[in-house]
Amino acid sequence: MSASLQIGLLVFPKVTQLDLTGPLQVFSSVPGAKVHLIWKRIEPVPSDSVLTLTPTVTFADCPQLDVICVPGGAGSDDMVNDEEMLDFLRRQAKAAKYITSVCTGSLVLGAAGLLRGYRAATHWTAMEFLEPFGATPTKTRVCIDRNRVTGGGVTAGIDFALTLVSLLVDRQTAEAIQLRLEYNPAPPFNAGSPDAAPPEILAVMKERIAVTQPRRSEAIRRAAARLTS
Amino acid sequence: MSASLQIGLLVFPKVTQLDLTGPLQVFSSVPGAKVHLIWKRIEPVPSDSVLTLTPTVTFADCPQLDVICVPGGAGSDDMVNDEEMLDFLRRQAKAAKYITSVCTGSLVLGAAGLLRGYRAATHWTAMEFLEPFGATPTKTRVCIDRNRVTGGGVTAGIDFALTLVSLLVDRQTAEAIQLRLEYNPAPPFNAGSPDAAPPEILAVMKERIAVTQPRRSEAIRRAAARLTS
Repeated sequence: MSASLQIGLLVFPKVTQLDLTGPLQVFSSVPGAKVHLIWKRIEPVPSDSVLTLTPTVTFADCPQLDVICVPGGAGSDDMVNDEEMLDFLRRQAKAAKYITSVCTGSLVLGAAGLLRGYRAATHWTAMEFLEPFGATPTKTRVCIDRNRVTGGGVTAGIDFALTLVSLLVDRQTAEAIQLRLEYNPAPPFNAGSPDAAPPEILAVMKERIAVTQPRRSEAIRRAAARLTS
Repeated sequence: MSASLQIGLLVFPKVTQLDLTGPLQVFSSVPGAKVHLIWKRIEPVPSDSVLTLTPTVTFADCPQLDVICVPGGAGSDDMVNDEEMLDFLRRQAKAAKYITSVCTGSLVLGAAGLLRGYRAATHWTAMEFLEPFGATPTKTRVCIDRNRVTGGGVTAGIDFALTLVSLLVDRQTAEAIQLRLEYNPAPPFNAGSPDAAPPEILAVMKERIAVTQPRRSEAIRRAAARLTS
């Protein structure tokens, strides 16, 4: 293992690509960091959009990581019951400095048994699914509990990654990256959280979630049962 | 050409991947939109990080686009003198509804002659390079001038894309996407613009830029000379 910082982002089918690419942009700017995109095999993996993600290293060949980061998305519903993924996370977690996630990636950490007794963030639509894994859901954009650092939904990954860089290296390094990425956000509308969004927008989103939620519920139920058995 | 909205993002070597992946996440959520990743050939293209980007369509096979979007990054210094890229943009621009960019992608639009007489945004380090193309640099995060919609540096691409969706479709659609992406940003530090950043952070960034700026200057000089000849 080299002296450089080893940062690994997990890749999987139907990952929400911005959950991964936001933090990736931040981590890639850390001096001396080596960033890995990790999956079972080196083959293009479809994301939630037309973008395919090509892993740089397999589970088998991945060096010990200083930072493990699990992004989220629809595909996390499969990952919570993927023993190969969960075994990889458990193995890496033993010696990693930080065990982290963005969006529903925290459900995968939970399914690996890595959030029991920890506070954690997740996408606003998935808060109820942390408790079956013994985690305490928190509505913050970035949640730090000892060495578990978890981000909220999708774009929270940028806030999460800058926070993590300040912990890993220092505040000045994080600020220099923020300036380089011109991260001075100015959302054109005020609809970025369930509390802020206009009621009719929230209602539309809740209708859409109602369609996918039973599948997620069932996946989480199975994952939680396996964890406690 | 189908009735759906055709949105094309240009891919090129050394693109800053978040310039592309931020808007891609937003555009991919637009009902009925078909999103294309466009390059000369269908082959993995290296970004500025370990992520490779695989185009979905070539210049030759790309349908007429409703939206052209050029991301930025170090690679844009090559693209401003890449006749194949510039020809593609000029050809598409004739019938596109919106001609857009993120970060230094606006320099490539400028080099194609598509910003003459327009106001435009770009990365804060590249403001001076818009003028040689007859564009007026503006320090806004999103700049709308008739059908040219240009974003500032890197993360401005998310604000840009939500704004563009509100123009292309409607505000409600943009707000629903904002809620889905939980885009309620809370940067942990206040260093995201040259005006806000601590002086010592700005000084470090300016030192780094001084190293790459001569190459960019020379590329822009050549591109501007070609445009006016």
